Amino acid sequence: MDKIYFDHAATTPIRPEVLEAMMPFLGDSFGNPSSIYEIARTSKKAIEKARDQTAAALGADPSEIYFTGSGTEADNWAIRGAAELRSGKGNHIITTAIEHHAVLHTCQYLEKKGFEVTYLPVDEEGIICLEDLEKAIRPSTILITVMTANNEIGALQPIEEISAIASSRRILFHTDAVQAVGHIPINVKQPGIDLLSLSAHKLYGPKGVGALYMRKGVALKSFIHGGGQERNRRAGTENVAGVVALGKAIELCVSEIEGEAARLTAIRNQIIDGALSAVPHTRLNGSRDKRLHNNVNISFDFIEGESLLLLLDMKGIFASSGSACTSGSLDPSHVLLAIGLPHEKAHGSLRITLGRSNTSEQAAYFLGELPAIVQRLRDMSPLYEDFIKKNRS
Amino acid sequence: MDKIYFDHAATTPIRPEVLEAMMPFLGDSFGNPSSIYEIARTSKKAIEKARDQTAAALGADPSEIYFTGSGTEADNWAIRGAAELRSGKGNHIITTAIEHHAVLHTCQYLEKKGFEVTYLPVDEEGIICLEDLEKAIRPSTILITVMTANNEIGALQPIEEISAIASSRRILFHTDAVQAVGHIPINVKQPGIDLLSLSAHKLYGPKGVGALYMRKGVALKSFIHGGGQERNRRAGTENVAGVVALGKAIELCVSEIEGEAARLTAIRNQIIDGALSAVPHTRLNGSRDKRLHNNVNISFDFIEGESLLLLLDMKGIFASSGSACTSGSLDPSHVLLAIGLPHEKAHGSLRITLGRSNTSEQAAYFLGELPAIVQRLRDMSPLYEDFIKKNRS
Repeated sequence: MDKIYFDHAATTPIRPEVLEAMMPFLGDSFGNPSSIYEIARTSKKAIEKARDQTAAALGADPSEIYFTGSGTEADNWAIRGAAELRSGKGNHIITTAIEHHAVLHTCQYLEKKGFEVTYLPVDEEGIICLEDLEKAIRPSTILITVMTANNEIGALQPIEEISAIASSRRILFHTDAVQAVGHIPINVKQPGIDLLSLSAHKLYGPKGVGALYMRKGVALKSFIHGGGQERNRRAGTENVAGVVALGKAIELCVSEIEGEAARLTAIRNQIIDGALSAVPHTRLNGSRDKRLHNNVNISFDFIEGESLLLLLDMKGIFASSGSACTSGSLDPSHVLLAIGLPHEKAHGSLRITLGRSNTSEQAAYFLGELPAIVQRLRDMSPLYEDFIKKNRS
Repeated sequence: MDKIYFDHAATTPIRPEVLEAMMPFLGDSFGNPSSIYEIARTSKKAIEKARDQTAAALGADPSEIYFTGSGTEADNWAIRGAAELRSGKGNHIITTAIEHHAVLHTCQYLEKKGFEVTYLPVDEEGIICLEDLEKAIRPSTILITVMTANNEIGALQPIEEISAIASSRRILFHTDAVQAVGHIPINVKQPGIDLLSLSAHKLYGPKGVGALYMRKGVALKSFIHGGGQERNRRAGTENVAGVVALGKAIELCVSEIEGEAARLTAIRNQIIDGALSAVPHTRLNGSRDKRLHNNVNISFDFIEGESLLLLLDMKGIFASSGSACTSGSLDPSHVLLAIGLPHEKAHGSLRITLGRSNTSEQAAYFLGELPAIVQRLRDMSPLYEDFIKKNRS
């Protein structure tokens, strides 16, 4: 069997139609969009088309879309920009304990600058409690930032309700939708989102480009200062090829959401049901249904996630033990700790995130290999030995 | 004749060897470098190779190179990072009046935050006076930021001397070398540069990627917070293809500096001499010799630079009236004003920046078309009419 890529939340391959759309801008159409001659105008037009495509995918107006160098930059801009914009009104920010580090570390940075941050807890499914949110709001609260979908356990937050609460209290609402855009339907006008971050390489576009949706009337100052690009709001020569690719990728992904969601849900459930029934002492992390269609996160007692990944890699299966951004770190996932897993179980988790290339046959192959791999690791595990001894006695 | 691209300071086309190097990372080698399986390790290795190439091109250690999303981001990071790092020591920054907006607007942002900034004047060649610099230094001076080569008039600053002054006073020294790297030899160790910004798309790499050189021991904090990429200093999934391209592009450019410099100097002088002799009432902006090999900047009295560009565009010649980042703005160039041009002459300037595709034949074609174009515009100009009437009387 060919290699199986099960790590679409870490990054996705660029799809052929997207590569085809961006290639001219890595070739003859190389003009700087800020110049005024022929090839430069081609670049400028291409960026505006991509802006239209991105806006349409989100139900936004093109004037509300700002391209950035990554989803992380969009998160930094949204949160630090909102803090700066509203610092006259207050210094309190509400977020959750399970945000991506792009949000958490930005909040921690702001704490050092004198802002106060409430990190809302989540339940065992990874969902915040709306009452907790209401209680956390203070007169000095200026920003609520809650991710649409979690990158590790796929947990879907009640974004509409959160947004309604923020709006009724006149607090800015930002959502890190990097894992959600292109995967679940999102309309920024429906729940009234003020700021939304997204990234191209999570939806079959290239790395190095993202976008920030900024609702008309929410006039964040620049995060990166310099030339007048992006209506004077984000300086730096535009990554024309990347932006064009983002536009094409988001258009394609959003148009296919329905079919892909159904297809991936079936494969996801096949893997969850198969793994839980074939391997004892396992647990699904996160909700059964309030989760992304493509997300599986399972803890295997007594083993280390990293060793599991290495053995899967040897079988040609590429998966993750947490978010890619923290792989290589020995700290257990802050998300798994937040949903109540003890340290040792948080260490033994496997994340599978499905995408366009995945099939039911691949899931079956994985499920065929999994029990022996887990057993091999458990046979090496002192924790498992202790457990077996205890159960014998 | 084919189209003539005379705007290499605005952006350069990606050269074929660079495109070839980056293509695998837009295709099958799409792994997230932070993951641990096979295709991810390929991405990680490619980034480290590009870091080695970039470091070698600058005489730096690979551990001193940090990839960014643009030269502008590198400038923002360097200046705001240095200001933050040294804010305990003082609040004074020295720069010049002719920096790129990525530096100027960042300094202006810091002024709003309580920093004080001295904008050194330049002489009519666009060069700062070292005595002015010495005099501007205060006990509270924490950063000197002076560009290596100017983007509009190509003026080369005495970087070694500036760096020596900064170093002897224990002041951090940053240089925006976006227009210089790959065009003139630069060794960060020689004059002892602390921080240096560069951009891939100015040296035949793609848009959307740059780098900051940060001398060992100068530990700027992160500018973009999030995951642990770039040794915990610049968060966001790496633009692998872009970074690989930057490494290849800088390696090639630096290896060819000598030959290209000689070749372009000849074409540059052909254009300068030809234009000044063929068209009356013109002036070379900037120095004859203390300028980049590829830069021509000429003012044509009585006409508007933008109209000149449009007529050149119709002849298939793509040039600029100032920096691309401010095209479309009606303000005259701050650089031309700083070297003493009155407003009306600053408006009538033409910038030609040469590159790999340019030939002496193209220069000759341009020089053949130029006089008639200028005359046509002057015939429409009330300023020229006044001038002629005055001379007749």
